[in-house]
Amino acid sequence: MIGARLEGMLDGGPVFEPGSVWLVGAGPGDPGYLTVNAIRALQQADTVLHDALIDDRILDLARPEAHRIFSGKRAGIHSIDQAALCARMVDLARSGQRVLRLKGGDPMVFGRGGEEMLRLAEAEIPFRIIPGVTAGLAAMAVASIPATLRDVNRAVVFATGHAAPDTDETDWAALAALGQPLVLYMALRRIDGIARELIAGGLPPATPLAVISSATRPDEEILISSLGAVAEDRQRYNIEPPAIVVVGDIVKTRERLLRVAPAFAGAIA
Amino acid sequence: MIGARLEGMLDGGPVFEPGSVWLVGAGPGDPGYLTVNAIRALQQADTVLHDALIDDRILDLARPEAHRIFSGKRAGIHSIDQAALCARMVDLARSGQRVLRLKGGDPMVFGRGGEEMLRLAEAEIPFRIIPGVTAGLAAMAVASIPATLRDVNRAVVFATGHAAPDTDETDWAALAALGQPLVLYMALRRIDGIARELIAGGLPPATPLAVISSATRPDEEILISSLGAVAEDRQRYNIEPPAIVVVGDIVKTRERLLRVAPAFAGAIA
Repeated sequence: MIGARLEGMLDGGPVFEPGSVWLVGAGPGDPGYLTVNAIRALQQADTVLHDALIDDRILDLARPEAHRIFSGKRAGIHSIDQAALCARMVDLARSGQRVLRLKGGDPMVFGRGGEEMLRLAEAEIPFRIIPGVTAGLAAMAVASIPATLRDVNRAVVFATGHAAPDTDETDWAALAALGQPLVLYMALRRIDGIARELIAGGLPPATPLAVISSATRPDEEILISSLGAVAEDRQRYNIEPPAIVVVGDIVKTRERLLRVAPAFAGAIA
Repeated sequence: MIGARLEGMLDGGPVFEPGSVWLVGAGPGDPGYLTVNAIRALQQADTVLHDALIDDRILDLARPEAHRIFSGKRAGIHSIDQAALCARMVDLARSGQRVLRLKGGDPMVFGRGGEEMLRLAEAEIPFRIIPGVTAGLAAMAVASIPATLRDVNRAVVFATGHAAPDTDETDWAALAALGQPLVLYMALRRIDGIARELIAGGLPPATPLAVISSATRPDEEILISSLGAVAEDRQRYNIEPPAIVVVGDIVKTRERLLRVAPAFAGAIA
């Protein structure tokens, strides 16, 4: 079924040189979102340092003799220090290995890939970035919410809700004033406060809001709520991270779909 | 080299039912950015309606007996009317075909996928969205510019520079006031005016700006300029669409890389 063309495609492309590091996006979860380049990377790597939540079916595409090192973090539980992780990547590359840093989503979107890239450059380790489907866009797609829609928006904002102790806080009032859809990463744990700040910034409490948890995974859940109701709704329906939160009228697209085509309640997504 | 696991992965996944339409993202250009799900779609489709700029190596993954219909647009040249395209998709699906609508990048990011999804729903045609790597993120990656970087930004804005005759204009002053990186799609033809508006909105003329043209394609070009200099620089270096324009201090990351690791001038990207 695959055919010679795909074989040729996988055999071609960039060569993973010994002594280099590739920062690779694995997409949102389901292996169907992997790119050809990510598969090529897995098939050449000597060591795979991977985040939490990378599906075993993805890791199993690595060569059997490749080392797998869990290097993930979850909110509140730092299983490995970022500086130690970078040092380890540098050491492995210097020892001549092909080092694959595998991250959920896209490595350059709220994934600290940029910092890792700078550390590798400082250490004079050659690197390559392999983009992936970012979690925010995948989550919107599974909820049948477009990122952009004519007559609704001309811009879309990706922002983090994660509170880093040593960085500036997100300016929620400024984001509210923009009047464009917000796609929030790592925001669910703090969504009550974020929603209050967005309302204080001028967004109506009735502004539609979607929480898409574990997008593309077997435990995927979609909660449709509003800025004013999300604090109560997320408790009532017990929706948990990892999640993407979408705020704005673009969320109504989902209702429009269900209204014009109620028969698709199960077929969409 | 591919192995049984990947074969199994491609044989699994969603089944493309006759009479349905899949809206599929092909990624930025290079076939290495295709996802497994996009390949699955190509291998099952009866008709492929594709945009301009889809690589032949991607189209050649379709079954030999599949019909291929060019349905692209370029700025200023509408080769097919949007309403006619939607009607054609509906007709093909009603005749029992598996209809693949193949778009560059991600179908839901400034690609009119949302409108097509709504038209399909109105016609009661089952559909599925297959996300792709969006052009903005791929372009930043090839230029070694992260979308987000600790201490630089906590949000990133994707906006269109395309002037649609019947929609509201983008509020450039509001985007300037946000102080976060802007990733602009279809903005190169109008960048002189957009840069003036962003400067009028408060961004310094020295604000770094990158133009990434034909990202991931053989004719890829990267121009580093600034809001104040882009009008002159794009003429001088004759950089052409399709292009992504990135505005903001995040663009300096590229210089930081080259400064710490000048030997990588050729190795990065």
